[in-house]
Amino acid sequence: MGGAATIERGSLTIRGASIVAVGSATEVDVNGARRVIDAEGRVVMPGFVNCHTHIASNMLLRGLLEDVQLFEWLGTMWKLKRNFDPETLYWASLMGLVEMVKSGMTCFNEHFDAYAVTPQTEALKKMPLRATLGYGFADRGVYADVKDWAWKALDSFGDKVDAYHRSGNDRVHVALSPHAPYSCGPEMFRRVREVADAYGLVIHTHLSEGPQEIAYVAETYGTRPVQWLNDLGFLKPDVTAAHCTQLDDADIRILAETGTKIAHCPCCNAKLDSGTLRLRSVREAGITVGLATDGPASHNSLDMFQEMKFAGMIHKDKNHDVEFLKTRELLEMSTCEAAKAMNRPETGTLTPGQKADVIILDLDKPHCLPVYDVAAALVYSARADDVVTTICDGRILMENREVAGIDEAEIRARFRERALALRDRSL
Amino acid sequence: MGGAATIERGSLTIRGASIVAVGSATEVDVNGARRVIDAEGRVVMPGFVNCHTHIASNMLLRGLLEDVQLFEWLGTMWKLKRNFDPETLYWASLMGLVEMVKSGMTCFNEHFDAYAVTPQTEALKKMPLRATLGYGFADRGVYADVKDWAWKALDSFGDKVDAYHRSGNDRVHVALSPHAPYSCGPEMFRRVREVADAYGLVIHTHLSEGPQEIAYVAETYGTRPVQWLNDLGFLKPDVTAAHCTQLDDADIRILAETGTKIAHCPCCNAKLDSGTLRLRSVREAGITVGLATDGPASHNSLDMFQEMKFAGMIHKDKNHDVEFLKTRELLEMSTCEAAKAMNRPETGTLTPGQKADVIILDLDKPHCLPVYDVAAALVYSARADDVVTTICDGRILMENREVAGIDEAEIRARFRERALALRDRSL
Repeated sequence: MGGAATIERGSLTIRGASIVAVGSATEVDVNGARRVIDAEGRVVMPGFVNCHTHIASNMLLRGLLEDVQLFEWLGTMWKLKRNFDPETLYWASLMGLVEMVKSGMTCFNEHFDAYAVTPQTEALKKMPLRATLGYGFADRGVYADVKDWAWKALDSFGDKVDAYHRSGNDRVHVALSPHAPYSCGPEMFRRVREVADAYGLVIHTHLSEGPQEIAYVAETYGTRPVQWLNDLGFLKPDVTAAHCTQLDDADIRILAETGTKIAHCPCCNAKLDSGTLRLRSVREAGITVGLATDGPASHNSLDMFQEMKFAGMIHKDKNHDVEFLKTRELLEMSTCEAAKAMNRPETGTLTPGQKADVIILDLDKPHCLPVYDVAAALVYSARADDVVTTICDGRILMENREVAGIDEAEIRARFRERALALRDRSL
Repeated sequence: MGGAATIERGSLTIRGASIVAVGSATEVDVNGARRVIDAEGRVVMPGFVNCHTHIASNMLLRGLLEDVQLFEWLGTMWKLKRNFDPETLYWASLMGLVEMVKSGMTCFNEHFDAYAVTPQTEALKKMPLRATLGYGFADRGVYADVKDWAWKALDSFGDKVDAYHRSGNDRVHVALSPHAPYSCGPEMFRRVREVADAYGLVIHTHLSEGPQEIAYVAETYGTRPVQWLNDLGFLKPDVTAAHCTQLDDADIRILAETGTKIAHCPCCNAKLDSGTLRLRSVREAGITVGLATDGPASHNSLDMFQEMKFAGMIHKDKNHDVEFLKTRELLEMSTCEAAKAMNRPETGTLTPGQKADVIILDLDKPHCLPVYDVAAALVYSARADDVVTTICDGRILMENREVAGIDEAEIRARFRERALALRDRSL
């Protein structure tokens, strides 16, 4: 899967953290294997790659505020989450990692409020997914109160790089995450670019997310967000831009020319009425696009099955073309294309040399049968609960839906406690 | 739930097929109860009502043909399904019923090709859901070859009524299902209306489903589908019209004035690019609207969680209003409003006197936590796999996700066999 053909009765060999062979089941020699997993009748595919999310800060906010306007929502969310203590952030991160493992995600691109770094890296030791942790920076608007802190953190960013970048057998990377054109000034975007270039880090930002941002940039800078960032020399192939729901033709040309990648969050964009990515146009322009869930506060599910299905439906509808966005393309956008979109090309396909990030699914379920075509069943019928086994970096993180190495019930209990405390404190 | 308030730590008493009491857990006297189900920490709500689907004919066609134009799709599907033998239809129906039970559906409105009646009623004896079985009729277009058969069946419809209507403790009703304005002539719609009035049956049809239908009716009759059916004296409160994605203001007025109900299938409509129901306008006009999945051939899932979530997202997006369509309204549209939309008001709420169609959900899952608000968690986080218990007509059909009274593995095996045979024969 993931760009390649489907192999019937295949085999996959993992050594250490890597895939070393992919072929037919009859060719493989299991003698000497430390562990053999019989996946007869099941589907083996690359783990999903979630190229834009916010788990540390968002998990506790899921479902707290529905059906309200974006700015009311953003403001309330920020008021709540800036008071999270490290222990709360640890349990929230761990809960999010467990949800992702149980949904078949093996790699994610976190955009977080930078105070969350220690709790989140601790959680990642407990539940070792592949991750790029983007440190959030902002200095205006709703986030004006973190300005001094953000600038100081940018100036000492080498410490973060030394502490965390390429840690955990190269699973955990560090990135820079200026929040958005309406929450960071030009000096901050320029400084982020300098720091990124100095340390060879990637960048992960929100861009062109809604009409409010377009209006803000027009009023403040007399231009459009994509054009503005390009004029600052900010856009390069190392940038993952989340959302991009408000692109005009010139914006698309700039993103293509600069090699900027897009993290596309169809569910969240619709739910918050932020607009719809012009998917056909950006793909035709050659821009790399990955699917992503955004944080569970804005769309509520770390579930790539829902993103694939919703993306298929909404883009067929909006393009008035049922042939647009075929099932295999949706699978690619949630695996190998998402990996490229977050500049982690070592994952997302089942090919020798790639990281062993692999999931196994059981589609022998009433809601999936019949399985005439695996891609169609995965995109339009399967659900996250159909993932039975999740392997990341060669390690089995879940088997038969039991998450390894943790006490899931305890994590849920600790997480529920903190949610109750948050509600009591804030509502 | 379902129009009423949420009760914390509630109790629900069932006697025979009916709910006899709903209240606080402290008030209930469990002495003398034949069975007590402890649902501590769980959510108890009405079973979902699927007010437009096609399981008998569609289950075997799921995922067979994706990403193709509507008319190619319709033609291929019809060629395949008209050759189904009764045993195939039995296993397909039973598989669909099992899927619905496992997704928390307790009542459905089947629009089927009339040859399926015996197999489907047999399957309903095995898996006793509440159902209205709409006999399909057509006499032109892709379905022209069943013309003689359809007219004969209409003329002897009393036999079907005698055999099946109000059978199975009044769970199974019979309805008339003329296919659509492009596949039935005016004489057929008039005759269906006469038969419905004669026997006091309800009607379930497709209406105003896509631009092709609008063009056909304009060309053939010089009017619009809704107007045309109204001129034939066809539209009354006993009619459930599926889809209605192409309504103008005059159409909406007619549907409101005649009391016609709408079965809204947001996923299928988007996936097949049929247009989008003007939900705000039809609700403001006072029209009853229920959510429905359509058949698993067109949208692939008999899963009301997906319909609720997708409906919330697409209508917020299309109305440019995040406050539109609140979580509680989506729950009502998939329970009590859907029940009204298919003229089965005896189900869809948890109130004394209603049929005991009840589901129990476990939301203590990583993807649902925290549960600040039950309605938000049900609509935007929960999945079909979170339904643990399904009760219909006072009978427990599923408990702890085990479907009672059947061998699920055998049903899946028989169903898979038939799917393979169909593929070998047809592709």
